[in-house]
Amino acid sequence: MAVYTEVSDAELEAFLVEYDIGEADAFKGIAEGVENSNYLLTTTKGQYMVTLYEKRVDPKDLPFFLGLMDHLADRGINCPRPIHGRDGKALRRLAGKPAAITSFLHGMWPRRIAVKHCGPVGAALAGLHLAGQDFKLKRPNALSVAGWRPLFDGSRAGADDVARGLVRELQAELDDLEAHWPKALPAGVIHADLFNDNVFFLHDKLSGLIDFYFACNDSLAYDVAICLNAWCFEPDRSFNATKARALLQAYEKVRPLEAAERQALPLLARGAALRFLLTRLYDWIHTPANALVKRKDPLEFLAYLRFHRSASSLTEYGL
Amino acid sequence: MAVYTEVSDAELEAFLVEYDIGEADAFKGIAEGVENSNYLLTTTKGQYMVTLYEKRVDPKDLPFFLGLMDHLADRGINCPRPIHGRDGKALRRLAGKPAAITSFLHGMWPRRIAVKHCGPVGAALAGLHLAGQDFKLKRPNALSVAGWRPLFDGSRAGADDVARGLVRELQAELDDLEAHWPKALPAGVIHADLFNDNVFFLHDKLSGLIDFYFACNDSLAYDVAICLNAWCFEPDRSFNATKARALLQAYEKVRPLEAAERQALPLLARGAALRFLLTRLYDWIHTPANALVKRKDPLEFLAYLRFHRSASSLTEYGL
Repeated sequence: MAVYTEVSDAELEAFLVEYDIGEADAFKGIAEGVENSNYLLTTTKGQYMVTLYEKRVDPKDLPFFLGLMDHLADRGINCPRPIHGRDGKALRRLAGKPAAITSFLHGMWPRRIAVKHCGPVGAALAGLHLAGQDFKLKRPNALSVAGWRPLFDGSRAGADDVARGLVRELQAELDDLEAHWPKALPAGVIHADLFNDNVFFLHDKLSGLIDFYFACNDSLAYDVAICLNAWCFEPDRSFNATKARALLQAYEKVRPLEAAERQALPLLARGAALRFLLTRLYDWIHTPANALVKRKDPLEFLAYLRFHRSASSLTEYGL
Repeated sequence: MAVYTEVSDAELEAFLVEYDIGEADAFKGIAEGVENSNYLLTTTKGQYMVTLYEKRVDPKDLPFFLGLMDHLADRGINCPRPIHGRDGKALRRLAGKPAAITSFLHGMWPRRIAVKHCGPVGAALAGLHLAGQDFKLKRPNALSVAGWRPLFDGSRAGADDVARGLVRELQAELDDLEAHWPKALPAGVIHADLFNDNVFFLHDKLSGLIDFYFACNDSLAYDVAICLNAWCFEPDRSFNATKARALLQAYEKVRPLEAAERQALPLLARGAALRFLLTRLYDWIHTPANALVKRKDPLEFLAYLRFHRSASSLTEYGL
């Protein structure tokens, strides 16, 4: 649940003077999103989102994120488009925090993932990868393979309390992934967090992608692997190969995977599962059980990790 | 922070079929409000609010609340207007909870109260009192004088840890208020919770009143007394008589106070301060310090209570 920063009416008014989007009619804090404070702004000209960047976002990265959304929107990707002020700037400060206004995206994220969602997600991801190819700014992926060991080390002391034998299992997994992580796959801008709450649908059509605040440069197929984890497991943690096939086939219609990418997919999927397992584990261990932020169960991704480790070939992913 | 109940897209779709307000374009949980789950719904026809009533609201009271909003809106009060379904009903169920759709009210609540807000609040409160006169349903005020002692008794054990001597001070106050509480003042429907987050302004004009979920039948002047507590103290807990004068004078332009009401005002203001002190104290003592719901400081109202007790005449309220 978000809205960490309260904005006064006077602060909002002074902020909006810099823009040509009309006067504020309503301004409501949105409960979704845990990283930033998001407000739905209604003006005399339309609806917008106002985002205040909280401490988990490094201000140095904001030109990359906002520039990327501009870049993608220019290329026809349905994503929030940063609104530029009269001075041309999209990034300024509100209530003491870096802040930006973006266009309002219609649609709702699917609370229950169905097979019908997975094809459109695959196609949209591929479209994003193609549209990002000529984006000039770079941002390394701090949460790729090199970032996992520090996270693991920071969680080691409490990990076996979360699940017996977890330290040993993760240790082996990490050793193996570090040794075999592919380094020469086609790379570019990836979303890196395309879970269902970041994809909007309207009348069964995908209407937009949001939350580019983990976007970075990395292997494109790793982004596909993240989506396999995000979209293809059932609530009982079983893998749904029909969903995976729909996602991968639709992806490949827009951007065919190279042989090396296909071959690496089970390994990349293990890595993606480990990445979310480790950040959740770290938060689980370092967040008090009854804190304001709801903790997410890291063991969900342990189940996913084990599935990917057991997968012997791409046929298990429906291909 | 609200949104306790998640609504799935399928549940929302089935719910909206009962209404003639178009199809959902967006549906976002609002962070404001602590009693219920509130969603901002954008449809092809406009913006609406969807409220799911959580456990703090007694379902038996919902016909009163929704009926009152209908009644007031019919009489030109700017408040959320319940949207009736094709079957005529405004109240149905969504995601297992009682739920209603209301019109969307434009405006923002003032984060910092200024003198300019207080006149419009007084006038709107008086307008509400007049418009409510012929409302047929009744709801007793569970949080009036008869309700305070049970709250006090339930907080007694922990009260002196909140402030030294609090038990003795509240005991004396309660005895005095119970003995002298006026019983024959003009009565009717009161809002009972008209704090600044329940009053919207647009371009310095009051644009609406929201949150009628404490509304009930009680002395009208008691509602005025609540507003004196809600609008006329500064952040340093000092009383601003200019704000009080603005509020009271504007109220009286619409509905003049009777002599008995004026005379009772300091006592009623003490009672109102005690009422919010006691509910906050109860929540403070019975809510873990790091729970999901943010606790509000009860001692704010102890300062207000002491001011009202020290007030010897109406001149101290700017009259």
